[in-house]
Amino acid sequence: MHRTKVKVVEEALDANNTIATANRADFDRAGVRVVNFMSAPGAGKTSLLERVVADIPGVRVGVLEGDVQGEMDADRLAHLHVPVTQLNTDPGFGGECHLDANMVRSAIGALPLDEIDLLVIENVGNLVCPAEFKVGEDARVMVSSVTEGEDKPLKYPLMFRTCDLVLVNKIDLLPHLDYDLDRFLYNLDQVHPDVPRMLVSARSGEGIDAWRDWLQSAAALVRALA
Amino acid sequence: MHRTKVKVVEEALDANNTIATANRADFDRAGVRVVNFMSAPGAGKTSLLERVVADIPGVRVGVLEGDVQGEMDADRLAHLHVPVTQLNTDPGFGGECHLDANMVRSAIGALPLDEIDLLVIENVGNLVCPAEFKVGEDARVMVSSVTEGEDKPLKYPLMFRTCDLVLVNKIDLLPHLDYDLDRFLYNLDQVHPDVPRMLVSARSGEGIDAWRDWLQSAAALVRALA
Repeated sequence: MHRTKVKVVEEALDANNTIATANRADFDRAGVRVVNFMSAPGAGKTSLLERVVADIPGVRVGVLEGDVQGEMDADRLAHLHVPVTQLNTDPGFGGECHLDANMVRSAIGALPLDEIDLLVIENVGNLVCPAEFKVGEDARVMVSSVTEGEDKPLKYPLMFRTCDLVLVNKIDLLPHLDYDLDRFLYNLDQVHPDVPRMLVSARSGEGIDAWRDWLQSAAALVRALA
Repeated sequence: MHRTKVKVVEEALDANNTIATANRADFDRAGVRVVNFMSAPGAGKTSLLERVVADIPGVRVGVLEGDVQGEMDADRLAHLHVPVTQLNTDPGFGGECHLDANMVRSAIGALPLDEIDLLVIENVGNLVCPAEFKVGEDARVMVSSVTEGEDKPLKYPLMFRTCDLVLVNKIDLLPHLDYDLDRFLYNLDQVHPDVPRMLVSARSGEGIDAWRDWLQSAAALVRALA
């Protein structure tokens, strides 16, 4: 049983990687760079996007919103007048807890690739499975809220290990929490030494300029290489 | 492709239900009632257990700790001198994002069923898949932290719809958040009208007596029916 299961999982991930490569080729042809944006539920992904997507100098942003159900995050971004496309995993994809390459592929036709430079794919809120499935991204960014505790890198190591940037969000709440930021950063370095990290607050605006700059640089840098 | 996938998922859930029924029969024979305890990562499950498991009058509690990796939560509970058994989904179960009936079945031999009245199964931190898999529980309790936002019942409806109690945790932080508690409760009632709910803070202790009483009553009530 066990060996069979592992083999099925490996084959599924191989198939996913093949489709992810095709997605990335399509994005490359359109000159669009892609960020896979991940976190636990309620860590602040949408709030951090609201803060920046409409005003990154020289970069036209589009958002692909991944959710199990509903369009609430897409609705929140709608007033920013950036193109937002909704992708639900239920119905159609069995209510999956993550986006995979095939789901993103199904949405490519609906994305205005000619009108954007950077596509941010907001994944389903989950610290486990989204990290296992490439979707065709150039970079991965994850958000860890200080309200979630210092132990999360050790409990969900694949997510923290496979990302290119960690946004430590809700730092405005630090005075009100029993949270040891140094302990979190130590744990982060145990699973992903020296990964770039930013302390931010979508609420107070602290660190938001650095987050906007990172997106601008990422879009420009990768576009120059393409 | 799509119809095949749905069929595979349905068959997997049928198989899971069969094993869950066997687990429940084993727990019944031992006179042990079981709570499946679920939430997003960092919502406070372990902290809420630390507050109560050692002193529920007349109820001997055991804990089955579900995590992808590590034993951090089990270590946190160890000083309370209640039996704690660790169940990791990686390695052995492919790093799954949830517990299922087969995983719990694999741990039954390690559980001191003769020495406990109530088993709390702390599931993997995730608002999606844990709700899909019965593990042999008598009741489901979920934790929603106020730091996660008011929209979670609408975004993760299956979790909120299938639970028997909602603990709204971290209410000590309400003065520092842009969180509309009435809006959350309204959203909760949209997906699960009149589900019992308690406002609690593992940090301040507010609401903890009610949570302890609920566990006591649940253990006694179901035991009387068995």
